[in-house]
Amino acid sequence: MNDMTDRDTLLALNQAFYRAFTNRDAAAMEALWAETLPVSCIHPGWTALFGRDAVLTSWRDVLRSPSGITVEARNERVTLHGNTALVVCEETLGDAVLAATNLFAREKGNWRLAHHQAGPIAPARADLEIPAKLPRRLH
Amino acid sequence: MNDMTDRDTLLALNQAFYRAFTNRDAAAMEALWAETLPVSCIHPGWTALFGRDAVLTSWRDVLRSPSGITVEARNERVTLHGNTALVVCEETLGDAVLAATNLFAREKGNWRLAHHQAGPIAPARADLEIPAKLPRRLH
Repeated sequence: MNDMTDRDTLLALNQAFYRAFTNRDAAAMEALWAETLPVSCIHPGWTALFGRDAVLTSWRDVLRSPSGITVEARNERVTLHGNTALVVCEETLGDAVLAATNLFAREKGNWRLAHHQAGPIAPARADLEIPAKLPRRLH
Repeated sequence: MNDMTDRDTLLALNQAFYRAFTNRDAAAMEALWAETLPVSCIHPGWTALFGRDAVLTSWRDVLRSPSGITVEARNERVTLHGNTALVVCEETLGDAVLAATNLFAREKGNWRLAHHQAGPIAPARADLEIPAKLPRRLH
């Protein structure tokens, strides 16, 4: 690492994650995920996937299907917790907006993705910072 | 702490989180969240909430609305990362099943919730460990 702070590094890695997604770049996606630390991933609507094989297989499936959609992160917030770091952000996929949790962990000195969850933000709520009421049926 | 391992402690805290939810117990819920570390929360369909005030206000709103629904965690997986720990689990709320990320961090020696995200699992996918295909429109 040069003079980038951890926070800059994490924001850059978080952007690289969505760039790999947009570019359907499986190699770039694989390089972002931890190799030896446990990894897990919750795609929207899915059960959780555990382990590098299951997680990367799911991403290869995602990236194989052509979309032409640009996936971008916005409103990123980085929280450092020693050797882990939480990046919470919004993902824009065409018209859809999702809220995402990206957990990074330091592996051999380098920040790597350890966990990802994303879920759609209900359209009426996407522009509200603190919604007044929760959907009844769930939380 | 007595002789409980961190893993046992984290599983117990994760259960306590869903017990507080079921019992509409705002005091128990508040005690689970970190006081000085940054906290954030993504309820299903919501934008992310940041800071203890916003997060706890949202939970008080959730817990105020009567539901009579038992909320339970299952298939918990704990991953320790030094002073943070990730608990990934499924939440059952009546007929709904959600996938959840619960991030705990050590605050003054005690594990406390630092981040939570939950999102519904699509009914057809709830029993599949590795779904064959992703919803097209999102990931």
